[in-house]
Amino acid sequence: MPQNTNPINAKFAAICGVTLALTLAFAAPVSAQQTSSVTTQQAALIARPMMISRQGSFFVGGHDIFSDTLSTLPNYAASGTVTVDQMYVHYQVPVKAKPLSLTLIHGCCLTGKTWESTPDGRIGWDEYFVRKGYSTYVIDQAERGRSASDISTINSVKLGKTAPSQLPSIFAAGREDAWTIFRFGPEYQKVWPGVQFPMEALAEFWKQMVPDWSAALPTPNPTVPALSELAIKLGGTVLISHSQSGIYPFQAAAINTRDIRGIVAIEPAACPAPGGDLTPYTKMPTLVLFGDNVDTSPRWSPRLKLCRAFVEAANAAGGHAQLVVLPDLGIHGNTHMLMQDRNNLQIADWLLNWIDKHIDAKAS
Amino acid sequence: MPQNTNPINAKFAAICGVTLALTLAFAAPVSAQQTSSVTTQQAALIARPMMISRQGSFFVGGHDIFSDTLSTLPNYAASGTVTVDQMYVHYQVPVKAKPLSLTLIHGCCLTGKTWESTPDGRIGWDEYFVRKGYSTYVIDQAERGRSASDISTINSVKLGKTAPSQLPSIFAAGREDAWTIFRFGPEYQKVWPGVQFPMEALAEFWKQMVPDWSAALPTPNPTVPALSELAIKLGGTVLISHSQSGIYPFQAAAINTRDIRGIVAIEPAACPAPGGDLTPYTKMPTLVLFGDNVDTSPRWSPRLKLCRAFVEAANAAGGHAQLVVLPDLGIHGNTHMLMQDRNNLQIADWLLNWIDKHIDAKAS
Repeated sequence: MPQNTNPINAKFAAICGVTLALTLAFAAPVSAQQTSSVTTQQAALIARPMMISRQGSFFVGGHDIFSDTLSTLPNYAASGTVTVDQMYVHYQVPVKAKPLSLTLIHGCCLTGKTWESTPDGRIGWDEYFVRKGYSTYVIDQAERGRSASDISTINSVKLGKTAPSQLPSIFAAGREDAWTIFRFGPEYQKVWPGVQFPMEALAEFWKQMVPDWSAALPTPNPTVPALSELAIKLGGTVLISHSQSGIYPFQAAAINTRDIRGIVAIEPAACPAPGGDLTPYTKMPTLVLFGDNVDTSPRWSPRLKLCRAFVEAANAAGGHAQLVVLPDLGIHGNTHMLMQDRNNLQIADWLLNWIDKHIDAKAS
Repeated sequence: MPQNTNPINAKFAAICGVTLALTLAFAAPVSAQQTSSVTTQQAALIARPMMISRQGSFFVGGHDIFSDTLSTLPNYAASGTVTVDQMYVHYQVPVKAKPLSLTLIHGCCLTGKTWESTPDGRIGWDEYFVRKGYSTYVIDQAERGRSASDISTINSVKLGKTAPSQLPSIFAAGREDAWTIFRFGPEYQKVWPGVQFPMEALAEFWKQMVPDWSAALPTPNPTVPALSELAIKLGGTVLISHSQSGIYPFQAAAINTRDIRGIVAIEPAACPAPGGDLTPYTKMPTLVLFGDNVDTSPRWSPRLKLCRAFVEAANAAGGHAQLVVLPDLGIHGNTHMLMQDRNNLQIADWLLNWIDKHIDAKAS
């Protein structure tokens, strides 16, 4: 293998090349099962060097706690102060950045990895958005990934100071359960016809999943005020959520609408109640986006219905909200992980076009 | 505040500009306490666009486990299969990349964030190395950060199926304890004279710290075989460790020396025993690097001595190893977090020069 060639990316380049060649030479339909659906224009953009003005990472939010059960090991003191509930943010600002930035917020049992390279090594939305000129901020939810969790109760239970029932409710989603939640198919190991997810890379996808501490955290999740703080720090951003985090941007807007330029909720686990106070949500354009096979899912079908009702109510209250189900656009086979599906760049282009049309970078 | 201006980076640009202006206009010494020590050449490199050929992330290693205690919540199944012990890897490959890649391995209670922007918003080594032409791979250790931990025992204890004493030994390092471990000063809230760490940004630094599961994991840490697998996947890399992870590259070399082009151990918590089998470590150039005030530290002083003995023994066995303490180069005030210290780019340049001189990209 040549030096410094990542085999995953080499594979992607090969797939990409094949698609491009097929498109140019035959203009024939390409099976979604076998290749990514990258257009000539997208392939050219990806092939060019990515011009970064600056990049880095920082934290938003967080508070100090003192605990006597930080450690049960002799090498590390039991008592001390740590900071928890901060939100990790990684960003890239391209050369000649557009005035509008995008903030990507992952869902249940996942981290900011959600938006990076797909399990089969294709380009992630984080990079694609930067290549399209948007400054992009990718977060790890509070107490997940690179955002510290509070383990003091675990050690307190280990030392017999606290009852086991008081352990934090941390959960991991097993793949048997996740299969239908992610709508890969109607039941475990069965696949929906024409599914766009790169099923051959499932083993790599399962590695993205991490334990989820959200049920052990207060409501709203500390990620919510951190998102509001981030929006203000950036002087304006579009909050793009996924799944579990779907309600967070709305909750952030309920705290303070300032500098939340728009909300994009991708397959949200919840939308605001249509009967509640909708005033904050009338202040910014909102898109709710769902993939395919939603109506067949006992988990997702009622959520889609509730989001439809919210969108109607928000518009009736003077808002500017839209709900789109991809099959209505003629785009089929998308799973819950549509940012990783084979046609992820097709959806990205559609989404960026929606944002350009509907969201004003300078709105107050 | 203008759109899309990250205030942390704006601050950095200001600091950088001030340093540059001072250097150019007065050629006067700049206080390490007040500004970063960025040279004209470094400032020019940072000011230029960063040209990325490709970037992304993937996982190495990991294995499946089946558990009946993944969840105690009704919404997520208790039984199922998850993958644990995989290692998250984020990478950037610059345009016209040098043939040698660098892999950055963080230490105790931290994540890959260690190498990204410093707490006061200056450029991190991850970005600097890429700007200097090296493909750079930043990992999160197994069961840390974006690498999933195994929480099944925690839920088993919560459900009363397992004794509390069996809870995993997870620890968090409190700042009172970490202060002297990181050698900010001789005791908590006292600072070594001339310290290079940006002490005004400590609150941001504490937010980087996360719970550490390493004591709950087998020996060698699953990160070790994953590093060997990564080196082979990349067709060669330099493993650059820090602190806790200091021993990992050596352990990886003991598994398989293949494609480990060199080892750089920054303030390692341990070096291989000088009396052990040193054959694997004679196969690649090795640098052990320490900062300032090491001899004053009851924690670090014996480790430095052991590493000196290892380096001597490795060389006696036919190896090519070197131990450098920065004050011996006339570089003073560096803490345990020297990759974040004010003079981090000075050290980076010295390190890259050492790597260029001693490590052959094509060595087998």
